[in-house]
Amino acid sequence: MVSEQVGTFLMINPLSDEFFMQQALYLAEQAAAEGEIPVGAIVVCRQRIIGKGYNQTQRLHDVTAHAEMMALTAASEYLGAKYLADCTLYVTLEPCVMCAGAIFWTQLGRVVFGAADEKRGFTKISKAILHPKTLLADGILAEESRRLLLDFFRGLRT
Amino acid sequence: MVSEQVGTFLMINPLSDEFFMQQALYLAEQAAAEGEIPVGAIVVCRQRIIGKGYNQTQRLHDVTAHAEMMALTAASEYLGAKYLADCTLYVTLEPCVMCAGAIFWTQLGRVVFGAADEKRGFTKISKAILHPKTLLADGILAEESRRLLLDFFRGLRT
Repeated sequence: MVSEQVGTFLMINPLSDEFFMQQALYLAEQAAAEGEIPVGAIVVCRQRIIGKGYNQTQRLHDVTAHAEMMALTAASEYLGAKYLADCTLYVTLEPCVMCAGAIFWTQLGRVVFGAADEKRGFTKISKAILHPKTLLADGILAEESRRLLLDFFRGLRT
Repeated sequence: MVSEQVGTFLMINPLSDEFFMQQALYLAEQAAAEGEIPVGAIVVCRQRIIGKGYNQTQRLHDVTAHAEMMALTAASEYLGAKYLADCTLYVTLEPCVMCAGAIFWTQLGRVVFGAADEKRGFTKISKAILHPKTLLADGILAEESRRLLLDFFRGLRT
């Protein structure tokens, strides 16, 4: 398995979308390890990670403690600024309406998500929730993100 | 002026929507006093205020620091529970999409807002953002809320 992992690591181009999404996936794994629905997010500004978050709604008894909200808040704290126009958010699962609403307020430059959320993804309501200047990409390491979520929910049932 | 204030106070039925919205308005005034767009919110559960919040986006450099988010987080913290089905949120201004998304996740019993937000209110996108079980009422002390906002923005221009 180690050789496969090394192989995967070598295949990922540093500073690519896949590279940064992999960092978000590590955070999602951290969430799973703590019994939380595994979603992870990072905010990248000029190729540096300036905010991290993973879902902590159970531990904090707080529906607002989504990975994206934590990462956005951390990034704003780091920059000392509310607006994140030069930043990209990587999140393993499609943001919900709440998180997309927060992304709107930050005027984020770009959002990249992994797996689509067929039930609660913001695109099911309207793509216009995002700021018109915010670029959107999806499907990055989607299979890895989906597998993590499926494994988590299967684990709950056994 | 004092007699008018006393008069207003006496006219408000304790534990009515107007009574609780007045408490949210006091919080909005607190926001204004701190140079923040004046919006205030409280969460009421069985006639007790269990969460309070006012807009602090400027001070915290954080777009997620809306009055509603703070009040919901405080209420969940108080109850030690994510879900607020037995609670009512009173907020002086119509919630934005982010806050409505958070309200959805809490499965809040009821939302009462004051003034409509013609630009950023969630109803401009879709009323279906709220949980289907959440009751919605509006227009409570709307004029007082609107006046507070207008005075604030006029003050910024002078």
